[in-house]
Amino acid sequence: MKAVVKIKPELNGTEMMMVDIPSPGPNDVLIKVKVASICGTDVHIFNWDAWAAGRIKPPLLYGHEFAGHVVKVGNNVAHVKVGDYVSGECHIACGHCLQCRTGLAHVCQNTKIFGVDVPGIFAEYACIPAANVWHNDPDAPPELCSIQDPFGNAVHSIFATDVVAKDVVVLGVGPIGAMCVSICKHIGAAQVFAVGRKNEFRIELSKKVGADYTYKAGDDVKKDVFEKTGGKGADVVLEMSGNSKAVGDGLDLLRTGGELILLGVYADPVTLNFSKQVVFKYATIKGINGRRMFGDWYRMKGLLKNPGIRKDLETIITHRFKFADFHKAMDAMRGGDSGKVVLEL
Amino acid sequence: MKAVVKIKPELNGTEMMMVDIPSPGPNDVLIKVKVASICGTDVHIFNWDAWAAGRIKPPLLYGHEFAGHVVKVGNNVAHVKVGDYVSGECHIACGHCLQCRTGLAHVCQNTKIFGVDVPGIFAEYACIPAANVWHNDPDAPPELCSIQDPFGNAVHSIFATDVVAKDVVVLGVGPIGAMCVSICKHIGAAQVFAVGRKNEFRIELSKKVGADYTYKAGDDVKKDVFEKTGGKGADVVLEMSGNSKAVGDGLDLLRTGGELILLGVYADPVTLNFSKQVVFKYATIKGINGRRMFGDWYRMKGLLKNPGIRKDLETIITHRFKFADFHKAMDAMRGGDSGKVVLEL
Amino acid sequence: MKAVVKIKPELNGTEMMMVDIPSPGPNDVLIKVKVASICGTDVHIFNWDAWAAGRIKPPLLYGHEFAGHVVKVGNNVAHVKVGDYVSGECHIACGHCLQCRTGLAHVCQNTKIFGVDVPGIFAEYACIPAANVWHNDPDAPPELCSIQDPFGNAVHSIFATDVVAKDVVVLGVGPIGAMCVSICKHIGAAQVFAVGRKNEFRIELSKKVGADYTYKAGDDVKKDVFEKTGGKGADVVLEMSGNSKAVGDGLDLLRTGGELILLGVYADPVTLNFSKQVVFKYATIKGINGRRMFGDWYRMKGLLKNPGIRKDLETIITHRFKFADFHKAMDAMRGGDSGKVVLEL
Amino acid sequence: MKAVVKIKPELNGTEMMMVDIPSPGPNDVLIKVKVASICGTDVHIFNWDAWAAGRIKPPLLYGHEFAGHVVKVGNNVAHVKVGDYVSGECHIACGHCLQCRTGLAHVCQNTKIFGVDVPGIFAEYACIPAANVWHNDPDAPPELCSIQDPFGNAVHSIFATDVVAKDVVVLGVGPIGAMCVSICKHIGAAQVFAVGRKNEFRIELSKKVGADYTYKAGDDVKKDVFEKTGGKGADVVLEMSGNSKAVGDGLDLLRTGGELILLGVYADPVTLNFSKQVVFKYATIKGINGRRMFGDWYRMKGLLKNPGIRKDLETIITHRFKFADFHKAMDAMRGGDSGKVVLEL
Repeated sequence: MKAVVKIKPELNGTEMMMVDIPSPGPNDVLIKVKVASICGTDVHIFNWDAWAAGRIKPPLLYGHEFAGHVVKVGNNVAHVKVGDYVSGECHIACGHCLQCRTGLAHVCQNTKIFGVDVPGIFAEYACIPAANVWHNDPDAPPELCSIQDPFGNAVHSIFATDVVAKDVVVLGVGPIGAMCVSICKHIGAAQVFAVGRKNEFRIELSKKVGADYTYKAGDDVKKDVFEKTGGKGADVVLEMSGNSKAVGDGLDLLRTGGELILLGVYADPVTLNFSKQVVFKYATIKGINGRRMFGDWYRMKGLLKNPGIRKDLETIITHRFKFADFHKAMDAMRGGDSGKVVLEL
Repeated sequence: MKAVVKIKPELNGTEMMMVDIPSPGPNDVLIKVKVASICGTDVHIFNWDAWAAGRIKPPLLYGHEFAGHVVKVGNNVAHVKVGDYVSGECHIACGHCLQCRTGLAHVCQNTKIFGVDVPGIFAEYACIPAANVWHNDPDAPPELCSIQDPFGNAVHSIFATDVVAKDVVVLGVGPIGAMCVSICKHIGAAQVFAVGRKNEFRIELSKKVGADYTYKAGDDVKKDVFEKTGGKGADVVLEMSGNSKAVGDGLDLLRTGGELILLGVYADPVTLNFSKQVVFKYATIKGINGRRMFGDWYRMKGLLKNPGIRKDLETIITHRFKFADFHKAMDAMRGGDSGKVVLEL
Repeated sequence: MKAVVKIKPELNGTEMMMVDIPSPGPNDVLIKVKVASICGTDVHIFNWDAWAAGRIKPPLLYGHEFAGHVVKVGNNVAHVKVGDYVSGECHIACGHCLQCRTGLAHVCQNTKIFGVDVPGIFAEYACIPAANVWHNDPDAPPELCSIQDPFGNAVHSIFATDVVAKDVVVLGVGPIGAMCVSICKHIGAAQVFAVGRKNEFRIELSKKVGADYTYKAGDDVKKDVFEKTGGKGADVVLEMSGNSKAVGDGLDLLRTGGELILLGVYADPVTLNFSKQVVFKYATIKGINGRRMFGDWYRMKGLLKNPGIRKDLETIITHRFKFADFHKAMDAMRGGDSGKVVLEL
Repeated sequence: MKAVVKIKPELNGTEMMMVDIPSPGPNDVLIKVKVASICGTDVHIFNWDAWAAGRIKPPLLYGHEFAGHVVKVGNNVAHVKVGDYVSGECHIACGHCLQCRTGLAHVCQNTKIFGVDVPGIFAEYACIPAANVWHNDPDAPPELCSIQDPFGNAVHSIFATDVVAKDVVVLGVGPIGAMCVSICKHIGAAQVFAVGRKNEFRIELSKKVGADYTYKAGDDVKKDVFEKTGGKGADVVLEMSGNSKAVGDGLDLLRTGGELILLGVYADPVTLNFSKQVVFKYATIKGINGRRMFGDWYRMKGLLKNPGIRKDLETIITHRFKFADFHKAMDAMRGGDSGKVVLEL
């Protein structure tokens, strides 16, 4: 089968090549991939940055976001059938650590991620554990089902707090930031403020999917947020940018008693005045990663019934390529003037 | 000033008459009423049923739902000003019982309700404690601000559980049931099923404000709800009908681990198979009354920013009368083919 | 090996007999049982009541509470080793239903219970799925580890609400009721009231493990609870008796805004005044069964470090027998003047 | 009456002098003080540090922790009576800001603190708003009732998370740290680790009130905590030291998914690796100040019924002085080899 493989430890170092179709073990399923999508993680692997160099062992078939149909199931698999329309949670959890056994399998202490630690799904067929399979609603389009990994990050972040009827600031307007804007609006946030750094394309995208107000670097965000919230400040700040400065900015935007949710990954150290910004602010800060297995997937299933959210997600998918054009798709992704980029097989 | 007064302990027994404009005490405010609305409680008082006979002491100026502008404030009142655009929470809480001091003032052990235990607001002017005043958003229409008492009941019921991305059944399609339907849809419920008994006008109303599916007595609701939820059942049932049979029906509609929220008042005893319907169902049942003071009012402020919810509330207000036509308004309310009925002053 | 087998569908119908030592499948483990204990469920099986007749298919090796050491592990089992000191959760969950995938595996829709639906552990060796194994603390005595099934029911019930610094009533003073009393006291409940029906032995037992006040049928419990809580009522009622009358009694004991937790199984219908006892009481009712897998097991591990709780559990184990004396043990259990009854192998 | 007054803006600057007995306004009560206690805040005022210089306006009668009996009540006060045995919450909340109206009055946006912004209670009589009065249990000793301000800080911190059956680290072993140790043990924490910097007296105090393990600067706390928790780490860290380094240390002690509660005030900036210490740790950080009005006071009432907690609090009160010896008491407090210091009138 055709597959995208990182073959060399260098920028690009990626080839579309023929590999054997994997043979599912007794607890696995084999899936014919219909749509795959490119994650920021895939860009790190492509770019071969410090993180990639420290974790990835080429050759690696990468990619972990997809939707498709089951074509084969292992001997022990009873709840997944040939023909099922599925996607997959990329974290392969051990099932027996404290985190796995108390509802936190998404931060399993022994996790492996397919497309990172073991072979992934940028290929005609994907082989994953049956326990990681998610059954999609038959009427949900494959390209929307493919992007449930980042959509799930947004859902996890939002449901870690309470945004309904609240004033919410989203820092960072990449695809996950834009998804946050859309979800917040469709689950009844009072006002949503979206803040980008400089990428006008993405700031515009966040506007299209419902942000009440958008800002870019240099704007006086704090003054405006406090004004538009009657002097109160934001009830919730969702920090999706990964910019180290944004952590402190987020705290400063909060009302007393507000919550800061962090999905970003921060390359630089963050320095804060904890007395003023946290203790006297009576603030709560929550670090988030992955998505709840599978509470957040059920939430996604419910949210994907919403025509408004579907439309927004289709807007957030700014680029669609044939699988053969993987390198063009990766270029679009790396260019920055994009939301989600999907590959059709 | 003109006021609606229950003068005699009998059906109707109500007169629009001239009374003195009240003089606010040091902690009170006087409000020029712009819109008032009729609650089910007012119908009980008008009808002089058993509940009314046991609680109301005529003569009583009744009514408790309104919006208007402050014209006078007591000496100790600093945070309310003449000209403020306000509504009011009708529960006058004591402030010092356990419930008041732990965030449950809406179930204060020494509560008095204006329009029930002390003079109300079906009048040109209303005098209420400053602590009960709620500042409306300047751009929220008075008729919507007037109905925040029942809107708050709906908000309280919904926020006592978690409906976002969930399958929700609303039992009872009176004004509060219809409000529940609208809110659930606008805060992202996956599917909303509305069940009426026989009033087609109201079933139709719940459809207009967003119910995905509507039912009336005789329909096989349970079969359909299980089918449309993939065999799972409802995650949440909001029981707004007050029909004693509905409590058990609600439990039967729930999935294992679901929640039944009860705002209804049940004239008859309810008999249940607690093992099957509650214990093995792993169900939670919550009794609700009033609205959180003032957490639910803040939520209403946030939700009232939503154009869709505003539009629905305007649909739920099916009748508008001049204040002088109070008796016609009460007739419309008692007829049943109505949602909310408002009075304009 | 020696095993206790229900061989005939009648009262007793139970024989201690020789059976083959089970051979663990690839995902199972084989355990040498050191202590087993008798559950109320085992009494139902022994007595062959309506529930047993409807569910049990003789011949059945029954029993599901135990502690022991692993002697063999299946090929796929990595996290359990020969020699490990373990107990086991008796619910074999499917792992893929909504409940299993959202932290509610204890109410799995496809659950099987060992000792009920598949062979159990009243035997020299027990074979259970590795996923059901719980690693005990090395220094926790086997007889305490054996009773983690009912201890977990008590933990589940208590942690479904909030008893710390609260006034708590426990209805029903069987072994689980007594465990509730002990836990509540050791996690800082303000006052614990224990109510039995007539069994003086068990009322006395609840006193020994810390109940501040004990009552039996005929006492004016309500008057006393309200008096001793300053007129407020109980914050929490834990209903462990299964007496249908106790559901309404429990609600009547609650303060406005209190919580009623139900672990009991109610043979008879329960009739309530829902307006007065639930809605205006602003009460919450929660049905409980099983124990959270494995959040409640972790809680047990923490609580078992408490010397006071250990001592109480040893008091609650009122009878200890050799395995060969199973029928004597069952007699003690059925007699009623007992707490937990354990079997030593 | 005799009163302790800060008369000059300098170190000490404090005199025990005669002032008029205050005359309660219509919503106030006058209390004969029986026991008062010295808070860290009082030490700041005495020392005249930067915080004091920025906030305090001499002359000021300071002090805010006390217990006593009501001798006079204002005209509007109905729920407090002459003779009542009371203490008082020192935050005078406005009652109408968002925080006050949503259960967060302890972080009121317009708060005034008696003994800081308005006259306090180091005097024979104290005059406070009736709304701030707390009725003590008649059998709770005055010296324990006097220290409910810091006890409430500890309660607020602990109940902002969940310590029952959990492994807890307390950073900082001053009086509030010691109270945290005691409460955690008495509400069933699995293991409590207490970490001091160098004050051996206080480390020893934390041992006396129940710490399972104690540490001082230089000890390898992290290694030991992970070892004693089976490699998992602490479930909860309560940071009570105010040492800026302790914030990062606290995060490093947490297990994945743990919670860091901060009551400390940090003079220096705190620099963290947010990716590693917060996001991938899936950690929650909560800033705490004050105590919930009055949920935490009710919790204190419940906890004060516990003989073990009472005994520990009496141990934490290391020094008792006559009111006339205020300066000696302040010396004991400033010396550091002390827990709580109380004044008897």
